Amino acid sequence: MTALCDRHAVELREMIRAKEISPVELLTSCRERIEQVDAKVNAMVATCYERAEIEAKEAEAAVLRGDELGLLHGLPIGVKDLVLTEGVRTTFGSPQFEDFVPDADERQVQAVRDAGAIVVGKTNTPEFGAGANTVNPVYGATSNPFDLAKTCAGSSGGSAVALATGMVPLATGSDMGGSLRNPAAYCGIVGMRPSAGAVSDETRQLGWSPLGVQGPMARSVNDLALLYRAMAADDPRDPLGYPIDRNALWPLQELDLGSLKVAVSEDLGFAPLDNDIRATFKTVIDKLQPAFASAEHVDPPLDGADEAFEVNRALSFVAAHKQTYYDNPDVLGPNIIANVEQGLLMSLADVARAMTAHTEIYKRFIAFMRDYDALICPAMSVPPFPHGQLYPTEINGEPLRTYFHWLALAYGLTLTCHPVVCLPAGVDHTGMPFGIQICGKKGGDARVLAIAKALEHHIVQLGGLARPIPKLEGLAHSG
Amino acid sequence: MTALCDRHAVELREMIRAKEISPVELLTSCRERIEQVDAKVNAMVATCYERAEIEAKEAEAAVLRGDELGLLHGLPIGVKDLVLTEGVRTTFGSPQFEDFVPDADERQVQAVRDAGAIVVGKTNTPEFGAGANTVNPVYGATSNPFDLAKTCAGSSGGSAVALATGMVPLATGSDMGGSLRNPAAYCGIVGMRPSAGAVSDETRQLGWSPLGVQGPMARSVNDLALLYRAMAADDPRDPLGYPIDRNALWPLQELDLGSLKVAVSEDLGFAPLDNDIRATFKTVIDKLQPAFASAEHVDPPLDGADEAFEVNRALSFVAAHKQTYYDNPDVLGPNIIANVEQGLLMSLADVARAMTAHTEIYKRFIAFMRDYDALICPAMSVPPFPHGQLYPTEINGEPLRTYFHWLALAYGLTLTCHPVVCLPAGVDHTGMPFGIQICGKKGGDARVLAIAKALEHHIVQLGGLARPIPKLEGLAHSG
Repeated sequence: MTALCDRHAVELREMIRAKEISPVELLTSCRERIEQVDAKVNAMVATCYERAEIEAKEAEAAVLRGDELGLLHGLPIGVKDLVLTEGVRTTFGSPQFEDFVPDADERQVQAVRDAGAIVVGKTNTPEFGAGANTVNPVYGATSNPFDLAKTCAGSSGGSAVALATGMVPLATGSDMGGSLRNPAAYCGIVGMRPSAGAVSDETRQLGWSPLGVQGPMARSVNDLALLYRAMAADDPRDPLGYPIDRNALWPLQELDLGSLKVAVSEDLGFAPLDNDIRATFKTVIDKLQPAFASAEHVDPPLDGADEAFEVNRALSFVAAHKQTYYDNPDVLGPNIIANVEQGLLMSLADVARAMTAHTEIYKRFIAFMRDYDALICPAMSVPPFPHGQLYPTEINGEPLRTYFHWLALAYGLTLTCHPVVCLPAGVDHTGMPFGIQICGKKGGDARVLAIAKALEHHIVQLGGLARPIPKLEGLAHSG
Repeated sequence: MTALCDRHAVELREMIRAKEISPVELLTSCRERIEQVDAKVNAMVATCYERAEIEAKEAEAAVLRGDELGLLHGLPIGVKDLVLTEGVRTTFGSPQFEDFVPDADERQVQAVRDAGAIVVGKTNTPEFGAGANTVNPVYGATSNPFDLAKTCAGSSGGSAVALATGMVPLATGSDMGGSLRNPAAYCGIVGMRPSAGAVSDETRQLGWSPLGVQGPMARSVNDLALLYRAMAADDPRDPLGYPIDRNALWPLQELDLGSLKVAVSEDLGFAPLDNDIRATFKTVIDKLQPAFASAEHVDPPLDGADEAFEVNRALSFVAAHKQTYYDNPDVLGPNIIANVEQGLLMSLADVARAMTAHTEIYKRFIAFMRDYDALICPAMSVPPFPHGQLYPTEINGEPLRTYFHWLALAYGLTLTCHPVVCLPAGVDHTGMPFGIQICGKKGGDARVLAIAKALEHHIVQLGGLARPIPKLEGLAHSG
């Protein structure tokens, strides 16, 4: 029998409402799983079981009393450790914040708790989310549950591994250069990069930068949509916030893949891509494309994306870390230092050029997407590599521009500011999880979720591309 | 009897619908007024009468046929010369574009024409909208109709003068450092700076900068709201566009001033302000404040606004004009050169600091406005000055930081990204029009319009603060 902790959030939600299970049982199941496997994968780096148990008992009582129940009533959730959590240690993966315990939740956490979710703990992330390998000096590395020697990617790596191993049915992530899509792809789970402003974020330092967003992670698209609905809001403290129709985000509309025109791109026309991963993607697309009304192989017009992303990223790191870099550089890791130093050499004119290029990319992509319901491309450029290596330095023998250049498939779509779902599609040539990105139209967050859900269903029916699930035997705590 | 061209747009709209007047008569009235006064004020710098007459005849025929009529059916409109108009000379006030005739309208023009408005001509602006004195090498200076030797402010000066003198009932403007509020204040008309993204603008070069916006100008708040509804749209080509409820923008809800809590600030806590203008504002507020439930004298927390605005403004000018500055500096005027040169000395770190400061100002202002329905402050810091002078260099004997520092009352509110209406409130100590700014809550564009409309009505009832109207005798063409 499937353990409670391995079931989908939507299913658990119904079971709680039907009084088939209690939130207390569910929490216990999640806790047992964490205790069983986390010593090996190191995903759930801080926990708050005591409070969670009190909340689970209250949640149980509310069900028994017949109270009106919130959208996520009684569902355990993991929160990325870049996010402020009341009373729960929040380190950002940095020694600077090793002992930091916030006295308030940030908005997204408050929102999911108000909806009835129960925070179980914090999920690991690289220092300040920089880079796509989840390792930091406070907690060390999070391992990929499919191969403990390999990276789970990042920066929302802890959330992805917690989901893949059944520690929680839902988790939060964030995404600038693919931080929730990358680990979703490497761990066989789903993640969504929402439209900027849809999950309003009052903590952003550059209020009008649309690059960094918060978003949901889960084990199915339906669960993803459920969590997105709970996270989404128009909070005026986020300058990019806008009125959003949360009710449209879940339940999702049924949709016929045969009615869709999709664009398919192997490398977005500019991203480095390992030859074997390219072959894997081709195989996947060969299987999927007959399902659509049409699938046109065409690259989107993303010229200038590398420079535009590099300068904008440097701007955000200089804004956040310049003072620490000058005052106390020893507490900063190499990725942060690389970004800050790169940025300190740049001028206002560089920023003007990069922002102009970014705007042009956006407008060209808007025009490109007029002809398609979605764009499909791979999520990652290389298979998972050993987590001792911070990042790949070459692909197909070609050297890379920066420590994040291997993430160009992700940041190319980041620059478009269109909503993107990352969906598992079987395994790559190394047997590790393989993920695809499904990019929807601007503002079409509910629709791209509906497309992803239909595709997820189709993948299950097809066979051969199903979501891989890690073997628990290899993960069980031996001590 | 009031000439047709002097009537309000809303009234003319009803008369056209009731077949009391024909769009042809109305256009003739506007054309006659332009021919009567424009030689003196120089506001309507390019015209398209021939096409306008064809359109007016078609509009008349549509009424007679009983067609469904657009929101602005048959209403003449002036379009700021920073805006692309199909077949009508568009110079941006720059010798570079002296002979430029676009082959397509930009979105906002298309929108008002689709709504039935008839473009009569282009209204004057300083070179690329830089500075608040409407003078440029292509067309020369636009005069203030209340004193031809004085400036009408800018950069939407031509639109303001065209409205004040009855050339058109509606006109478009744009606003970064107050470009539509400043001339509204100096010419006794109304202008609105909308929330960024509400009037989506596909032409912006820095797609995510919320500082420059397009907006409506008119002779009454009701007309302003009508035009705003026609201009507003969520066009995906504008990255800041968001779903907007256009129906809420006009007709406006009735509102009781006695239900409102307002904040009143003389100088926003940081803006230079001429002592006599301060006295004028105090007199105005003494008369207005009994109408509100409460009027608290308090300055908003805008610390750091000058630096934040200067860097962001420099960024936009470097983005737009750096190449011309290097290749062909002779075609650029002193304001543009000053902005570009200032920007070329700045670093990415300066941008990071300014954008961080901007975000903090925004968040502090959001918190400040929690307690108020609106903030009221003066629109301009000094009375109108001779148009031969590009800008004031001192206020109360204190030197100013930049050529735009005298506009701090306007750009302080620009940085907050809240919607602002500029409303006439009698005259200043020199007998020239005096305007106040009414700033509403974020996203509350329809509500701040409703507040402004109620206040406009109250001002008429009060007496002594009525909208000044220029004397046509002094403007009539003598030759």
